[in-house]
Amino acid sequence: MTVTANRFNPSGSRIELIALPAIPLVEPGADLAALIATGLEAAGVRLQPGDSLVVAQKIVSKAENRYVRLTEVTVSGRAREIARVVGKDPRIVEVVLGESRAVLRQAPGVLVVEHRLGFVMANAGVDASNLEHEDVEVVDQVLLLPVDPDASAARLAAALGECTGVTPGVVINDSVGRAWRNGTVGIALGCNGFPALLDRRGERDLFGRALQITEVALADQVAAAAALVQGEAAEGRPVVLVRGLTWPAAAPATGASALLRPREQDLFR
Amino acid sequence: MTVTANRFNPSGSRIELIALPAIPLVEPGADLAALIATGLEAAGVRLQPGDSLVVAQKIVSKAENRYVRLTEVTVSGRAREIARVVGKDPRIVEVVLGESRAVLRQAPGVLVVEHRLGFVMANAGVDASNLEHEDVEVVDQVLLLPVDPDASAARLAAALGECTGVTPGVVINDSVGRAWRNGTVGIALGCNGFPALLDRRGERDLFGRALQITEVALADQVAAAAALVQGEAAEGRPVVLVRGLTWPAAAPATGASALLRPREQDLFR
Repeated sequence: MTVTANRFNPSGSRIELIALPAIPLVEPGADLAALIATGLEAAGVRLQPGDSLVVAQKIVSKAENRYVRLTEVTVSGRAREIARVVGKDPRIVEVVLGESRAVLRQAPGVLVVEHRLGFVMANAGVDASNLEHEDVEVVDQVLLLPVDPDASAARLAAALGECTGVTPGVVINDSVGRAWRNGTVGIALGCNGFPALLDRRGERDLFGRALQITEVALADQVAAAAALVQGEAAEGRPVVLVRGLTWPAAAPATGASALLRPREQDLFR
Repeated sequence: MTVTANRFNPSGSRIELIALPAIPLVEPGADLAALIATGLEAAGVRLQPGDSLVVAQKIVSKAENRYVRLTEVTVSGRAREIARVVGKDPRIVEVVLGESRAVLRQAPGVLVVEHRLGFVMANAGVDASNLEHEDVEVVDQVLLLPVDPDASAARLAAALGECTGVTPGVVINDSVGRAWRNGTVGIALGCNGFPALLDRRGERDLFGRALQITEVALADQVAAAAALVQGEAAEGRPVVLVRGLTWPAAAPATGASALLRPREQDLFR
C-alpha cells in the first residue's frame, strides 16, 4: 500500500534539503525512480509522508531521450537570420524555434522565447552542456525539455510510490535567467503532489488584515532551494530530498503549469 | 574574538532551514541582533561558522522606523492620475512615487516601478499589511523598504558577531511578483558576507565543457528557500537560520546590489 505524502505538517518551521549521493549518469530509457530509490538508500534516508523530491530537468530529459542530433537539423532561413543576430549556431537556433511559440527578444548572446509549454526562457531551455560526447570541443547534440514536465513529475511520483511505499511530492527544476535581475535561479518546470501555486486569498495577517500577497509560487521556491545543493557544474547532484515542507491542508495540488501567467495578463512581453 | 562564518563547507550536500521561534513584534529602534540572539537560544541553536540568517525586510524596516503616516502625505497631480488608473489610494501612490526612479507599468491593480535602489517591483515594496494599528479597516501608515538594505545587512552581521561571537552571512528578503510567472517568490534586497551573485565562469561541467550558466543568483535562492519557512500570513516567523550553505572559497562576498541588472542591459523594461 502506498501512503500519500502530502499531508500538512503542523510544525512547519524547519526544512531539510538533502542532495542524494550515488545518482549515476542517466542514459535514455533509464528508470529514474529506481535510481532515486538507490540514492535514498545511499543517503541512509527512507521517504516519509510529507517528503518531496526535486529532480533536475536535465536527467528527466535524458531518461526521456530528448536528444536532438545537430547533424540531422535542417536550418530554415528564419533560424539563419536569428542566428546571425544572436551569434549562435544556426542549427541550435533552429531547434530552439522548433520548441517555441514566439521569439520575445533577440540580441547578441540573447535569445528569449516563449517555449511551446508557455515558459518564458532563454533558448527554450535547450541545453548543450553536460551532454555525453567524446570531443568536448564539438557540440553534436542538444537536449530539449521534457515533452510534458507535469506529466513526467506525476509518473515519477507514482513510480516512487510503487517502489518505496510512499508517494512523494515531485518538482522538476531548471535554472533560468530573469527580467531585471542578474544570475539564474531554480524554477519549477513540472510539479506533482502539492500546490505549485499557493492561493492565500482569505488568509489574514498577524493583525487581522487581508493579505496583500495572495499567491505564493511554492514550487518555484522549492526549486530554488533545491538548486542551492544541486550545484550547476561538476557536482552532479541532480536529486534533492526536501523534508519538512508544509502547506495548508485544504490547498489543492496543481501542476507547474499553474505558475504560467497567461499572455493577456502579462505586461512584460 | 569573532569568527567569520563564511567558509567553504566541502560537503555541501545538505542544508537546513530553521525558522527561529520567539521573535516578538518589532518596534522602531529595536535591537534586531539581540532579538535574533534570543530567538537562536529559544531554538536551541548556536551560530556556527558557515551559518547565514535570512531576515524579513519588514522587521528591518520596522526597526529602522521606515513608517510613513498617510495623513502627512501631500498628493501630487501625477500621483492622483496614476491612482485613478491603478485604483489605489492616491496617498500610497504618492509614497510609492517618492521611493521610485521610474514607473514601468500601470494598469488596474498593478503599479510596477523601478525603486530608487534599482529593484523592479510592485509598489516600490511599500507595504500596508502587518502594520500595527487599532482599526484594521483603516490603513493610516505604510512601511518603506530599508534606506540601504546592503548596509542594514552589514550592520546586522557585525552586531550578531559582537553578541554571539560568530559573524553570520545575512540576507534581507522580501516576496515579489515576477514577469511571466504567477505567484511571489523571496528575493534578496540586502546581503552581507557571501557572494550574492556567484560567478561560475571558468568552471567546467561533468564533461569538461565550459558552463552555459555563468552566474547564479545565490542570495535570491537563499531568500526563496527561507520564505518556505517564514510564511506570509499569521505565522510570524521573520528570521530563518540557513545552515550548510556552501560556495567556492575564492568567490568574493558581494551585496545584493550585484543582483540588479543594469538598465542598459535589460531587455524587459
